[in-house]
Amino acid sequence: MKLGFCAQNYSEKPLDEVCKMVADKGYEAIEIATYDGNGQCDSAEMLKDGKAKELRKMVESHGLFISALSNHADSLLILGPYGVDTDGIYKGTKEEKIKFGTESLLASAQLANELEVDVVIGFTGIENFGRYFPFPYAKGWEACENQFVELFLPILDKFKEYGVKFAVEPHPNNLIYDVHTAKRCISLVDNHPCLGINLDPANLIYLGLYVETFINELPDRIFAVHAKDGEIVKHNIGKGGILMQGEWGRLDRAFRFRIPGWGSVDWKTVITELAMIGYNGVLSYEHEDVTMSRADGVDKCMDFLKPLLIKAPYEGRTDKLFTI
Amino acid sequence: MKLGFCAQNYSEKPLDEVCKMVADKGYEAIEIATYDGNGQCDSAEMLKDGKAKELRKMVESHGLFISALSNHADSLLILGPYGVDTDGIYKGTKEEKIKFGTESLLASAQLANELEVDVVIGFTGIENFGRYFPFPYAKGWEACENQFVELFLPILDKFKEYGVKFAVEPHPNNLIYDVHTAKRCISLVDNHPCLGINLDPANLIYLGLYVETFINELPDRIFAVHAKDGEIVKHNIGKGGILMQGEWGRLDRAFRFRIPGWGSVDWKTVITELAMIGYNGVLSYEHEDVTMSRADGVDKCMDFLKPLLIKAPYEGRTDKLFTI
Amino acid sequence: MKLGFCAQNYSEKPLDEVCKMVADKGYEAIEIATYDGNGQCDSAEMLKDGKAKELRKMVESHGLFISALSNHADSLLILGPYGVDTDGIYKGTKEEKIKFGTESLLASAQLANELEVDVVIGFTGIENFGRYFPFPYAKGWEACENQFVELFLPILDKFKEYGVKFAVEPHPNNLIYDVHTAKRCISLVDNHPCLGINLDPANLIYLGLYVETFINELPDRIFAVHAKDGEIVKHNIGKGGILMQGEWGRLDRAFRFRIPGWGSVDWKTVITELAMIGYNGVLSYEHEDVTMSRADGVDKCMDFLKPLLIKAPYEGRTDKLFTI
Amino acid sequence: MKLGFCAQNYSEKPLDEVCKMVADKGYEAIEIATYDGNGQCDSAEMLKDGKAKELRKMVESHGLFISALSNHADSLLILGPYGVDTDGIYKGTKEEKIKFGTESLLASAQLANELEVDVVIGFTGIENFGRYFPFPYAKGWEACENQFVELFLPILDKFKEYGVKFAVEPHPNNLIYDVHTAKRCISLVDNHPCLGINLDPANLIYLGLYVETFINELPDRIFAVHAKDGEIVKHNIGKGGILMQGEWGRLDRAFRFRIPGWGSVDWKTVITELAMIGYNGVLSYEHEDVTMSRADGVDKCMDFLKPLLIKAPYEGRTDKLFTI
Amino acid sequence: MKLGFCAQNYSEKPLDEVCKMVADKGYEAIEIATYDGNGQCDSAEMLKDGKAKELRKMVESHGLFISALSNHADSLLILGPYGVDTDGIYKGTKEEKIKFGTESLLASAQLANELEVDVVIGFTGIENFGRYFPFPYAKGWEACENQFVELFLPILDKFKEYGVKFAVEPHPNNLIYDVHTAKRCISLVDNHPCLGINLDPANLIYLGLYVETFINELPDRIFAVHAKDGEIVKHNIGKGGILMQGEWGRLDRAFRFRIPGWGSVDWKTVITELAMIGYNGVLSYEHEDVTMSRADGVDKCMDFLKPLLIKAPYEGRTDKLFTI
Amino acid sequence: MKLGFCAQNYSEKPLDEVCKMVADKGYEAIEIATYDGNGQCDSAEMLKDGKAKELRKMVESHGLFISALSNHADSLLILGPYGVDTDGIYKGTKEEKIKFGTESLLASAQLANELEVDVVIGFTGIENFGRYFPFPYAKGWEACENQFVELFLPILDKFKEYGVKFAVEPHPNNLIYDVHTAKRCISLVDNHPCLGINLDPANLIYLGLYVETFINELPDRIFAVHAKDGEIVKHNIGKGGILMQGEWGRLDRAFRFRIPGWGSVDWKTVITELAMIGYNGVLSYEHEDVTMSRADGVDKCMDFLKPLLIKAPYEGRTDKLFTI
Repeated sequence: MKLGFCAQNYSEKPLDEVCKMVADKGYEAIEIATYDGNGQCDSAEMLKDGKAKELRKMVESHGLFISALSNHADSLLILGPYGVDTDGIYKGTKEEKIKFGTESLLASAQLANELEVDVVIGFTGIENFGRYFPFPYAKGWEACENQFVELFLPILDKFKEYGVKFAVEPHPNNLIYDVHTAKRCISLVDNHPCLGINLDPANLIYLGLYVETFINELPDRIFAVHAKDGEIVKHNIGKGGILMQGEWGRLDRAFRFRIPGWGSVDWKTVITELAMIGYNGVLSYEHEDVTMSRADGVDKCMDFLKPLLIKAPYEGRTDKLFTI
Repeated sequence: MKLGFCAQNYSEKPLDEVCKMVADKGYEAIEIATYDGNGQCDSAEMLKDGKAKELRKMVESHGLFISALSNHADSLLILGPYGVDTDGIYKGTKEEKIKFGTESLLASAQLANELEVDVVIGFTGIENFGRYFPFPYAKGWEACENQFVELFLPILDKFKEYGVKFAVEPHPNNLIYDVHTAKRCISLVDNHPCLGINLDPANLIYLGLYVETFINELPDRIFAVHAKDGEIVKHNIGKGGILMQGEWGRLDRAFRFRIPGWGSVDWKTVITELAMIGYNGVLSYEHEDVTMSRADGVDKCMDFLKPLLIKAPYEGRTDKLFTI
Repeated sequence: MKLGFCAQNYSEKPLDEVCKMVADKGYEAIEIATYDGNGQCDSAEMLKDGKAKELRKMVESHGLFISALSNHADSLLILGPYGVDTDGIYKGTKEEKIKFGTESLLASAQLANELEVDVVIGFTGIENFGRYFPFPYAKGWEACENQFVELFLPILDKFKEYGVKFAVEPHPNNLIYDVHTAKRCISLVDNHPCLGINLDPANLIYLGLYVETFINELPDRIFAVHAKDGEIVKHNIGKGGILMQGEWGRLDRAFRFRIPGWGSVDWKTVITELAMIGYNGVLSYEHEDVTMSRADGVDKCMDFLKPLLIKAPYEGRTDKLFTI
Repeated sequence: MKLGFCAQNYSEKPLDEVCKMVADKGYEAIEIATYDGNGQCDSAEMLKDGKAKELRKMVESHGLFISALSNHADSLLILGPYGVDTDGIYKGTKEEKIKFGTESLLASAQLANELEVDVVIGFTGIENFGRYFPFPYAKGWEACENQFVELFLPILDKFKEYGVKFAVEPHPNNLIYDVHTAKRCISLVDNHPCLGINLDPANLIYLGLYVETFINELPDRIFAVHAKDGEIVKHNIGKGGILMQGEWGRLDRAFRFRIPGWGSVDWKTVITELAMIGYNGVLSYEHEDVTMSRADGVDKCMDFLKPLLIKAPYEGRTDKLFTI
Repeated sequence: MKLGFCAQNYSEKPLDEVCKMVADKGYEAIEIATYDGNGQCDSAEMLKDGKAKELRKMVESHGLFISALSNHADSLLILGPYGVDTDGIYKGTKEEKIKFGTESLLASAQLANELEVDVVIGFTGIENFGRYFPFPYAKGWEACENQFVELFLPILDKFKEYGVKFAVEPHPNNLIYDVHTAKRCISLVDNHPCLGINLDPANLIYLGLYVETFINELPDRIFAVHAKDGEIVKHNIGKGGILMQGEWGRLDRAFRFRIPGWGSVDWKTVITELAMIGYNGVLSYEHEDVTMSRADGVDKCMDFLKPLLIKAPYEGRTDKLFTI
Repeated sequence: MKLGFCAQNYSEKPLDEVCKMVADKGYEAIEIATYDGNGQCDSAEMLKDGKAKELRKMVESHGLFISALSNHADSLLILGPYGVDTDGIYKGTKEEKIKFGTESLLASAQLANELEVDVVIGFTGIENFGRYFPFPYAKGWEACENQFVELFLPILDKFKEYGVKFAVEPHPNNLIYDVHTAKRCISLVDNHPCLGINLDPANLIYLGLYVETFINELPDRIFAVHAKDGEIVKHNIGKGGILMQGEWGRLDRAFRFRIPGWGSVDWKTVITELAMIGYNGVLSYEHEDVTMSRADGVDKCMDFLKPLLIKAPYEGRTDKLFTI
């Protein structure tokens, strides 16, 4: 396993500068945003004139490699919500939003192909997450599933052509957010080889899900992993609950995203189960922690997580106590 | 405190029959549904020709009284979601839905006035509950709050005219669902005397909220209480999480509504804090428990909850150990 | 569900007397021991001259029915341990012990057939339970499994002829003691229709197993249920652990069998999951609780467990809130 | 075991009336206060003219018996605090307070002798409980222990003459308040046969003590038991802690005394361990619960605790499964 | 945040030597004792002839700064206990003790002014901590509060003149020991700007208080922080409880002070909430851990705590995912 | 305390190579296997021609010392099981196995004497661990104890002659596996000075034992300590329980051995209590962790455990706060 870094943590800086900084700190890989307007990497631009190759060379010049491309923002438009909720990403009719999201996601896949990167990460979105509750629209979830197949199956086939995999990040407010929905959606597209998971433990634990169960139940579908933690703020939970709304920075929040090791994720267990299923890829550190600077995070994530990464599987012992 | 019964548990039976049955079992009050098409009580009909008086007399003939009217289904239309999600309640444009919900809720209030019942219970609804999450629409929650003030303030003023209070049932998938949103909405309508809470513990606990904190923080706003429990199904939580979708009856559900005493609610604590704030009203039993028959529930709720209800506050002791 | 009674709790009294006593207390069914020398029911004797019919009539005369026969002691001999460990049950060579256990178990099945009782309960035994640990005999468990197939498959076929099912009681110190071994053994005999489980929660919880998971994983194999609880004695666990040896009555024991409701079993959860899989049979109370008299147990088990038994499955609600 | 009642719960009523009320409710024994000014029983008065006999006859006329006399208030004066802290009990110099407390306690013992009651209950007091902390007076606790021996040894010898035992109620703010101090003080008076414990679980649990460990460690010194519970109010603990000061009735208290079954005491465990050490006496219900009326308590204590009392020890089973 | 060191840990060594040692180990600040007879710093002496300046220069010569002065021992005399309990600090009548404590505390403030140090730390003391319990002296706590205002208000005004703040260390056995008493005392002196808190987590957790709640409730009153941990020794708690008396070194103690990271304090949570309220000062390591040498502590505290200190607040991210 | 290494972790490498590798990594001591066929150290061979001295010199040349010899495999034969279960260790009759085990253990002791090593570590074995359960052979455990005295007392006397101690490793599937059996066996051999414990926390925790209690109860019998951890795999426990059989590497195992810091052992508590009883020896790291390579373990154990080892006991503080 290796420790990577999400370049979008410092989207105000040029990619080159970010790569240099994190390589110096000991990070080994980088995840690059390719959604519209991310400020660091414009897919359309990069697909021109061999620029992708230059990008790759630049990354490698720092001793890093690109672990994945991120299309988090735009891919959300495909299943919605549409309307005012996503106008900040792209303003348009439902159909225009779907088209925009789809094209952006496919451009990321094409760029991944150019960059020889295996994985593009994104969200599925969902029209109204309130449909998790069977009232007042009992068939609401099924409707979303149908929409998923209709809109994503062609996308996945395109990914297959590019030789790239789509790693959905399970997250409340999306169609895929727990073990059941992840397995269900994979089965709805006939176990399409290009559909898998970007495991972000922080998004799972606040619903009570066991990250380790997620890993064990989808051993061949963990395409990428985010090193992000989430803190269930115990002394605030009584008033706000785990689904608390409001600004990330409010003092009385009952849930906050954190850097690895400062939240409720049991990283040794997560890393153990990743090792047990043979995952040997990158854990990519994303900073959404409102309690400390990104510079704090860069150091603390390295200090905490790097020594825990498992380098190789057990090769057995040869003595009598273990070979009878 | 008294033990009441939600007549809608047996909506396929006439009200008279339900009243007789539950009075025989020892229940002391009844909550009656008044939303459209509930099958037991049509507000428009009841407001004619002194029928409300007859209804009240019928209820009292069984030794019961009406604790509250329920407008759960229709009031949801006021803040939404609109569109297909609520077509099962009433099909129409957004404006038509708002109008329908508002009129139905006000009719309930008018009927409550006729029946000399203090409280009408309902939901607020919300256009898209996914807005609890600040991304992708950071101002989304505030937009819902503005809509709440615009649409509900006139309703609350009407309630005031009727001398009736509106008890919102906090519930995920609604604008009011935790301590913060409850206090916030009350403050947004300038502490309107007619806005309060129907405390349904089952809806709160699955978010990790403390029901006792809810009671302590809103001591003068608990207008009604539902005797409904919720089971966080521990051995299923790892895969499905507390926000699990899917049919209520599936074996692997991680959360189910239950009858009192069979879920995760600590009823002694809830009853204790209700007593501490001086609540001396009804706990109204609602059956949404998929694991057992309603007949099981009628008996088991009585067996479990009745002996726990606190009849009177502490009057002190007079001996030396307590009066120095 | 119904509450039953294990007649062997009072093996010093004649069956008739036990039936009378427990019927008076409100028990609805009886489980009868048929292993050698149990003092209440001799299989060989009962198979003569229509005596089985008389027995059944006697039981029914008290308003009871026979829920199952118990062959706990003798069936243990089939897989062992042999040698001195089981000389108290029957003294002989390994082969003689197997023969004795097999014949006793089959006599019970034959008697069940005569009595029109569906289920015979027993243990499997195991030659050396220490083989759960892969050292020093890595193939030890597999050897026991092979022995199980060899010795029990013919027995199960005989049961099939008698139209009787064999309910193994999972228990440490037996081949079947957790979910894995239960499913494994059923699969080893090709899902033989006569092999199932007598669920005794007390035997499971001290290993940390979830009784509810056991039920959910083997929904069509729960043939019988024992109402027995087990107390993990928290203040003693630090010194003795959950596998503590020594007399049942020692004050510092870290695990004790208890009557239902006085141990660590969560009975509402167990009953809920039994209801969810459609189990509608008997919970048969067995007294091995060293902290109180059997008379205490007879009353306390009835007080605690009877009101919790679920009588019928959920039939649904018909109102708008549940039928959209 | 039997369920008793502390007459001082209703000190404003005459003893006769209290006896009648609680006997009607099913209580079997009564504890009577004999400290100065208790309003129900004046030791000096009772020691005159055979009045003790009349009292006893009155109690027995209700089918009750006297389980113990209570000298809680006055005995506290013996070790203090003296000064203003105990002026409410008796105003005087340190020496006068000691004399008053000693004489009152001995008068209770004498009355117990007259009434043929085995046990007098009281506190030890302590000059300054802050001495539990070794700073700033490292020898402070030892000083209190010396004072205990000096003042209590003569009292215990007097008790011996009367054939009465002194049951100290362990309680923070007294010299005896945990297992160590209880055993230490008994050893300091050379295992005096008249020194033992009135076990009041509520006083123990808020320090984190295990009531069951207390019972197991002092099996022959549990002379009496109080049926009093204590609630560690979880949602208030973060601000106030378990040693919180302030009026008993404040809403945000982190610890409150409660009636049995409404606090943090695990009564089944307590009753189990009492049965295991052979305790077959009374559990005497004392009401200091500020959340409900005494009438609520009288009923709820009976409903909760009576069915749990263990009537007899295990007599064993005689079948093969238990006699090999 | 910075890691500091309490010089009194090595009171047998000269200050200069201590400063050298801890600066070499990476500590950044020093807290210096100024109570009578501390062996390292005599206030009266230091106030003469510019000696304060020399002291400061010496400290700075090691690259350290003085985070605070400590007047723990003497300030305790102001509210008591008086009498024998505090004779070890200063022998005298109540009035003499108050005078001594007051003058010592004010001398510390004067010296702080000379040294340009912001904060003096101390205790409040309390006459009898047993008054947390409302019996037998219901007005006892209020009496202590009155005494606090009378004796400390003039002191605080003097502090104001010196431009120095008084940081009380909440601690059982003192008037200020939880959130309620801290807020209450601040309000009793009309929010005097010079009264605040020296947060020592170890003193809080054994009462069950949440350190994070303390921080959140008094965001502008945390004047200093001690890096001291406390271990609730779980396997000893059943016998001794959290208020256990006896020597610090006894093996069966249920509570012990520990170095940071070896007790029950959740340091990441504490540091997080300190960061959230904008605390950017020193955490000063105090060694009262009886399980290991001070040299062990010096290293282990640095290893554990230094990497956790948060250097700067979150500055936000600028990409689309966070700026919509 | 020092960190040591079990040479048998790399039994496929020569001892010299292992010593070099671990010394380079910072380990300070080595434990060497001496059971038959261990591949690194043949007792018989070593007892010849001063070879022991050479071995010792080789070890010391790397800056290491030998903390103990390990006779785990062969010593197990002394109490069994015999038969097929231990044929992998040595094939023979019961008597032959006992003889082989005894001689191998004594050879280890003789070699320890030659090497000036204090301790030989081993197991006791047990004929059938199922005898922990009193049925069906109530006297079974006692029989094993008798056998222990008969076979081990002569061995211990021989150890005494050699001036070497025997450190039994408590482990389920052995006669000594908890506090009770450890103390019992020591008492059965009249507190023989040569019988003590090799504390391996991993073997204790899965039964729920408290390692710290073990240490506190046997303060003068902890002869050696293994640095081995055990993971109770929470998400697997419901199906498999803590006594789960099956290969160490199966994904759904509910218990696995782990390297220190990756399991359920609370190492700070263990190290604290070891320090409190004055243990100042070696913690010897043994790798049986199937989730990662031994190279991972060598580094991670050093990173995790070395900084936690306590170097010296508390020497006290000399200031007023601690010496009054």
